Amino acid sequence: MPEVFVYAIEGRSIEQKRSLVKKITDAVVEDYKVGPDAVSVILIDTPKSMRAKAGVLLSDKS
Amino acid sequence: MPEVFVYAIEGRSIEQKRSLVKKITDAVVEDYKVGPDAVSVILIDTPKSMRAKAGVLLSDKS
Amino acid sequence: MPEVFVYAIEGRSIEQKRSLVKKITDAVVEDYKVGPDAVSVILIDTPKSMRAKAGVLLSDKS
Amino acid sequence: MPEVFVYAIEGRSIEQKRSLVKKITDAVVEDYKVGPDAVSVILIDTPKSMRAKAGVLLSDKS
Amino acid sequence: MPEVFVYAIEGRSIEQKRSLVKKITDAVVEDYKVGPDAVSVILIDTPKSMRAKAGVLLSDKS
Amino acid sequence: MPEVFVYAIEGRSIEQKRSLVKKITDAVVEDYKVGPDAVSVILIDTPKSMRAKAGVLLSDKS
Repeated sequence: MPEVFVYAIEGRSIEQKRSLVKKITDAVVEDYKVGPDAVSVILIDTPKSMRAKAGVLLSDKS
Repeated sequence: MPEVFVYAIEGRSIEQKRSLVKKITDAVVEDYKVGPDAVSVILIDTPKSMRAKAGVLLSDKS
Repeated sequence: MPEVFVYAIEGRSIEQKRSLVKKITDAVVEDYKVGPDAVSVILIDTPKSMRAKAGVLLSDKS
Repeated sequence: MPEVFVYAIEGRSIEQKRSLVKKITDAVVEDYKVGPDAVSVILIDTPKSMRAKAGVLLSDKS
Repeated sequence: MPEVFVYAIEGRSIEQKRSLVKKITDAVVEDYKVGPDAVSVILIDTPKSMRAKAGVLLSDKS
Repeated sequence: MPEVFVYAIEGRSIEQKRSLVKKITDAVVEDYKVGPDAVSVILIDTPKSMRAKAGVLLSDKS
């Protein structure tokens, strides 16, 4: 508490994820005035075949 | 915005998913008066061993 | 099962919601081959002050 | 309705999951006064590399 | 971690909620072998006009 | 896409929210290499009576 869920397309590297969760946590700590231990970040990645924009699966887009 | 999340049992074909996201997007565009580009659909599938109804995992049902 | 969550800006009428949940349910029944009783739709509305695009709260956009 | 989502680190056995969904369902039935058929539980597991606490991925903790 | 989200119709008393979160937490602690401090439960209630089953808003059902 | 959901206790000011969504968006843009327009942030606040830690509602803690 707070918990942050990030829904994205799969394929980011561990370095990208490591950096992102650090920055998001720092932002929550700074702006919401909580200790860092209180902040959980959960990354939920999905393949392009499980995501649509404008009614079209991302795996169908060229 | 809007974002639509569909939680279902895994096993549907890409054709089923392609059709579903199109219809959901069309419905949101029509009823909520937004452009199609604004609509994201995210499909989150889980195996039967990760789902319960009436207290029983679906993988335990005959 | 399936469950569908629709996250949107508040302000739609009951008629818009009534129509949307019907169409989404029909789409899931048709494409995912489940009975209508199996389909739950949950609408989660948020005010513009709780939503951001491109880093800006929607309540701050003119 | 109600739907219960449990976000956890992957690695629990099927016996642990079977027991957990039963207890959660019993609790909802007892306290919220609904029939057991109305209760869905969805388990969403993530690897340690997709979870952070205090800004650090769990896979980076010793 | 774990985090548990319970989506339900609004209207339960504080006593019902107090009892439910205790039982869910106890179940997670017992089955998933984590300390109680690690368990967060978030209750997300919605009015009947924001929920549909079988394509019909619950507020439209007699 | 990506979509970021932040679940927190209600009571933060609009300035805190404005700052948080900006920093989270900047982090996603920088680390995940997407344009800012692609990033949605949704803040979902709940009262203390709808949140538990260690099995106790936050509204019951002194």
